[in-house]
Amino acid sequence: MKNIYIIGTGLIGGSLALDLKKVLPDSVVYGIDKNESHLVEALEIGVIDQKATYKDLDKADLVILAIPVDVSVTELPKILDQVSDFSIVVDVGSTKQAICNAVADHPKRRNFLAMHPIAGTEFSGPRAAVLDLFQHKTNIVCEVEKTAFKLQEQAINVFNKIGMRMRYMNPESHDKHIAYVSHLSHISAFMLGKTVIEKEKNERDIFDMAGSGFESTVRLAKSSPEMWTPIFKQNKDNVVETLNDYIKNLTQFKTLIENDDFENVFKEMKDTNYIKQILNGIK
Amino acid sequence: MKNIYIIGTGLIGGSLALDLKKVLPDSVVYGIDKNESHLVEALEIGVIDQKATYKDLDKADLVILAIPVDVSVTELPKILDQVSDFSIVVDVGSTKQAICNAVADHPKRRNFLAMHPIAGTEFSGPRAAVLDLFQHKTNIVCEVEKTAFKLQEQAINVFNKIGMRMRYMNPESHDKHIAYVSHLSHISAFMLGKTVIEKEKNERDIFDMAGSGFESTVRLAKSSPEMWTPIFKQNKDNVVETLNDYIKNLTQFKTLIENDDFENVFKEMKDTNYIKQILNGIK
Repeated sequence: MKNIYIIGTGLIGGSLALDLKKVLPDSVVYGIDKNESHLVEALEIGVIDQKATYKDLDKADLVILAIPVDVSVTELPKILDQVSDFSIVVDVGSTKQAICNAVADHPKRRNFLAMHPIAGTEFSGPRAAVLDLFQHKTNIVCEVEKTAFKLQEQAINVFNKIGMRMRYMNPESHDKHIAYVSHLSHISAFMLGKTVIEKEKNERDIFDMAGSGFESTVRLAKSSPEMWTPIFKQNKDNVVETLNDYIKNLTQFKTLIENDDFENVFKEMKDTNYIKQILNGIK
Repeated sequence: MKNIYIIGTGLIGGSLALDLKKVLPDSVVYGIDKNESHLVEALEIGVIDQKATYKDLDKADLVILAIPVDVSVTELPKILDQVSDFSIVVDVGSTKQAICNAVADHPKRRNFLAMHPIAGTEFSGPRAAVLDLFQHKTNIVCEVEKTAFKLQEQAINVFNKIGMRMRYMNPESHDKHIAYVSHLSHISAFMLGKTVIEKEKNERDIFDMAGSGFESTVRLAKSSPEMWTPIFKQNKDNVVETLNDYIKNLTQFKTLIENDDFENVFKEMKDTNYIKQILNGIK
């Protein structure tokens, strides 16, 4: 893996670039980004070694596609057209069904590996890139059987080296489950932020009262709308289902409070404390 | 302030005990707790210096009341009956209207100061106590004018010394605003946890996919139902109002997704990114 091309030099692409340079010290990391200022910045701060364009992709050993999921779907077929038979193209987007469908019949389907490394922060752009972001994190790999064996092996070895553990899943299951543990968390935080900001318009100084609990719960509302709008669009049905479940649970909890049924308010919270065990398991 | 009595030796009472011993090295910190095992534990790990009972309260210079808010309301009058004219009793609960009402006509009202130090973690019990928890945090002080001047001055000096900045507010405003920035965050996290746990019952391994974003958003769902049930009960009207606002915003966001109005999905998130400025302001 000598020539590595990172398409999209933001938080995820940039962090992968840093990790790949660490575990593959002989490689050269090229950056491709339609946002020229991001590309210049990525070069300046050493996230990438050199700038490149699609025309150079025939020299690629590994291509990482880390751009908004709606753009990935249109770009991936063009990228596959460009690469050699010995190149592996990995996409790292937060939805997997649309992208797998987009190249299902592509002649170079075997050169593509669909992944979702589950890691990130609420920041974006090349300066958000951090080394070791993927240490001890889960990497969901979809339709692994559709990728040429040697190429998948190479790619998975590299992701192992940067500290990830692999989980294999079909794209439908991925999109369904990730809606609960990731997409819903983002909407829940965005709407919490919105609700409190709306209130603040009329009630000054309300944020003087906000503590670390609010900060933690609302953190994801800092996330990039450019990234998240296409995710919600592509995963519309699953996201709407999670929102229906969440709104139902909130409404039921509200009704318990309205009816002074604090025995069940207590029980709901006690049952949900089970999340402690689950979160310990994540770590 | 020689003799300090901490009633309730959990997360908040215990953390205050540690801070008070640090800034008032000549003081003796006594613990009172109806949970005998908590009291023994607090003594063992050095959170308190000695065990005590209500009978000893006549010797108190400072009393900190850090127990569930429904119990505070019934205990505070008894505590005030017990203390001397030179003693200041401070309650640190998360609701302020009920407690202020409970002692509005008490002959020792001037010995009471209503506060809400906005700090905490999702853990509970004496072992959750941490030094410096209140550094650079906000302390809401309610009805300060109803407390004897010299006594309020002493108490506020101490809370200044442990690193807090004071904000003065009436109990009604406190309970209304705190519902948005604290109580709603807790319910939002609890219901997020519930929604995902319910899903997991049928879909194994879903939590393998949970990353730091989920962890942060759901963190408060580890909180103690013993503490939070009485808070929601006392602040019922405000909490129900925040839930109505929150559910309305979630439903509206869902409708935008259902209607494929992703331009406005984007706009909602972009507008809410304003939370970045607000959170920077908190720090």
